[in-house]
Amino acid sequence: MSIKTYIESNKERFLDELFELIKIPSVSAVTDHNNDTRKAAEFLLNQFQNLGMNNCEICETKGHPIVYAEKIIDKNLPTVLVYGHYDVQPVDPVELWDTEVLNNNGGLTCNVKFMIEGEEEIGSDNLEAFVKENKEKLKCDIIIVSDTGMINKTTPSITVGLRGLAYLEVELTGPNRDLHSGHYGGSVANPINSLAKMISSLHDENHKVTIPGFYDDVINYSDEQREKDSLIPFDLNEFKDSLKIKDILGEKDYSTVERRSIRPCLDVNGIWGGYTEEGSKTVIPSKAYAKISMRLVSNQDWKKISRLFTEHMQNITPKGMSIKINEHHGGQPYLTSTDSKAYSAASKAYMSVFNKEPFAVKDGGSIPIIAQFEKELGVKTILMGFGLDSDAIHSPNEHFGLSNFYNGIETISNFYKFYS
Amino acid sequence: MSIKTYIESNKERFLDELFELIKIPSVSAVTDHNNDTRKAAEFLLNQFQNLGMNNCEICETKGHPIVYAEKIIDKNLPTVLVYGHYDVQPVDPVELWDTEVLNNNGGLTCNVKFMIEGEEEIGSDNLEAFVKENKEKLKCDIIIVSDTGMINKTTPSITVGLRGLAYLEVELTGPNRDLHSGHYGGSVANPINSLAKMISSLHDENHKVTIPGFYDDVINYSDEQREKDSLIPFDLNEFKDSLKIKDILGEKDYSTVERRSIRPCLDVNGIWGGYTEEGSKTVIPSKAYAKISMRLVSNQDWKKISRLFTEHMQNITPKGMSIKINEHHGGQPYLTSTDSKAYSAASKAYMSVFNKEPFAVKDGGSIPIIAQFEKELGVKTILMGFGLDSDAIHSPNEHFGLSNFYNGIETISNFYKFYS
Repeated sequence: MSIKTYIESNKERFLDELFELIKIPSVSAVTDHNNDTRKAAEFLLNQFQNLGMNNCEICETKGHPIVYAEKIIDKNLPTVLVYGHYDVQPVDPVELWDTEVLNNNGGLTCNVKFMIEGEEEIGSDNLEAFVKENKEKLKCDIIIVSDTGMINKTTPSITVGLRGLAYLEVELTGPNRDLHSGHYGGSVANPINSLAKMISSLHDENHKVTIPGFYDDVINYSDEQREKDSLIPFDLNEFKDSLKIKDILGEKDYSTVERRSIRPCLDVNGIWGGYTEEGSKTVIPSKAYAKISMRLVSNQDWKKISRLFTEHMQNITPKGMSIKINEHHGGQPYLTSTDSKAYSAASKAYMSVFNKEPFAVKDGGSIPIIAQFEKELGVKTILMGFGLDSDAIHSPNEHFGLSNFYNGIETISNFYKFYS
Repeated sequence: MSIKTYIESNKERFLDELFELIKIPSVSAVTDHNNDTRKAAEFLLNQFQNLGMNNCEICETKGHPIVYAEKIIDKNLPTVLVYGHYDVQPVDPVELWDTEVLNNNGGLTCNVKFMIEGEEEIGSDNLEAFVKENKEKLKCDIIIVSDTGMINKTTPSITVGLRGLAYLEVELTGPNRDLHSGHYGGSVANPINSLAKMISSLHDENHKVTIPGFYDDVINYSDEQREKDSLIPFDLNEFKDSLKIKDILGEKDYSTVERRSIRPCLDVNGIWGGYTEEGSKTVIPSKAYAKISMRLVSNQDWKKISRLFTEHMQNITPKGMSIKINEHHGGQPYLTSTDSKAYSAASKAYMSVFNKEPFAVKDGGSIPIIAQFEKELGVKTILMGFGLDSDAIHSPNEHFGLSNFYNGIETISNFYKFYS
């Protein structure tokens, strides 16, 4: 039976199983849901076992467990390690379902291993230790991750770059207590106004980040490469319409696609200070706060950027005030080449399903663990994801289209075929 | 018995009564405390009745009631209207306690009326209507209010100016939903960054407010007047030490005293947007918010300033975004002359207690109802307050010194004597 026929005749079951998993509210960030994350891990374990995978186990960590399973059919064949996560709403567990095909003994032509964690949505804190301690178990030739997107429903892409992340929190302190804005207004610096001024100064008139040294390690692509990338389909009007914005803003001399892929950026993710409840209070607050993150590109180092940010913020703190800066977390950017066996196999797999060669794209998001996999296991990752911009990731009403679901199953199945 | 002796022999009772009132948590802003505000009003009514005041009543309004009482000893004598409020922690109900002296029939030489409201801390929304509807009842020659401060424990002052207030709330909207900062960061305007930039631009390098027309109606004082005002005692180091700040900030070419009295200013009183809980979330929020107030001086008009602010904020809103601005409330600035019978009487009263002529000062705070009293009743107000900067008004650990309490009682008592 061909993969296509197999998928066609199992469509409903795939969906039923997906729904069964999705129904489990495995929210890793909320300890009240610990029973649910456990339940999701057990669900996966059960699935792997039913599929006839070997060495299926729930590996305990200091946080939520990692589910491991493998099928080694021949030690001389290449091994694919599939990394995914079961926490929160797993819109993207494509890699689970296509393995049914493998179990069917129809065409498993390489070894597969699965490592499905439950803490991706809260920073993968325990995954690094697990990888370090299980290098032999996780030994493989390529890692496959389906946590990225494609250009649109009919235009496939393979992600060859990811942005890194440096995320910090700022606390600016002015007077030692909240002040009455009538008696003090105009005569002392207001931490909210000052923080707004500091934040404002972090971009210049060309919307470049003003932190000294910020761009030092950023790869500048050749005109040829940029021209090639400019062929990646993108409709600016559609982009604006989808967000209901009338205008865009970004670094001068770069396209929107480039601004969200090969260029770093700085965003305030949260700000608060003073009176924020209903009504009014005439207060000059003692403190103002902001959560600020920077998306990084190769070869920026998140620890260096965090340090540059911290030093710069200290330098621009008004004389009369004090600042405290805490690192939340970070991750390195990732970049891989299109010139590899895995990329060729993935490209062929997309061709066979979408009848189009996939574009090699750099994604604006961050999957910090990918750079860590390379560091610890010495193996590259192939990023074959099937999400769409319109899926509203991390937003209310997040969703995932059925055609992407089924096409994803078929593409990944074909990848195994072409890879071995 | 002299006023001094009377106060000395009743010190403890005054304090007991004050504490009895203070114990009632008459927080006007919180409906859960409605029973308490009512209780405070009834406590005052009872006090007035026990003092032998006439026409004591609790006047209902759409909100918290107003307590009224009067003692007309001779229609040909001048009448003083005392305005105060019983809501929240009334640190400053001096005007209540000195009236004991009057009841003692020791020296009441003018008529007195009391109007004590319960909504001062939430904008005095129903007081204007009450004043409009009771012009005959409230007819008087001078109004006395003790909601201001003095320079320090031993240096008295009479407040001849108050700042006005315009308080607005801003909602800036960018994309139609919260966005993942990885996929969109760098390519769309972030409402928090944009709001920070707008707020930052509201002051120029001399810390002047940049709203066009903002200073048009501000009184510019003569060099002579400014020189005279510069004699008002003020210790900048003490000021900085009390707030634990290393530096000050304010409008160029004006002293700290001037910046907080005769010059208008703009402060952000609250700001919020994006993710503000513990930890981190990589979001570009759809909206960012700020509560912004401006302290105004004569002859600025708060409605005009609110309009100028709104128009300016609309003008500087980035092209791709939309802004919504709501007026919270406002009040006119107030200015009165030192050349009046009431000012002379007050000055003498301070002299008799502190052995120093009081300074005529302009206060940075706002008591919007004072300008309305003048408009509706055609009567000026004499502001004799006994608070200190170090009292930490509107802050945790707000307090009021005992010597100020007793000196206040004596000064106000003497005012009645000198005024008639």
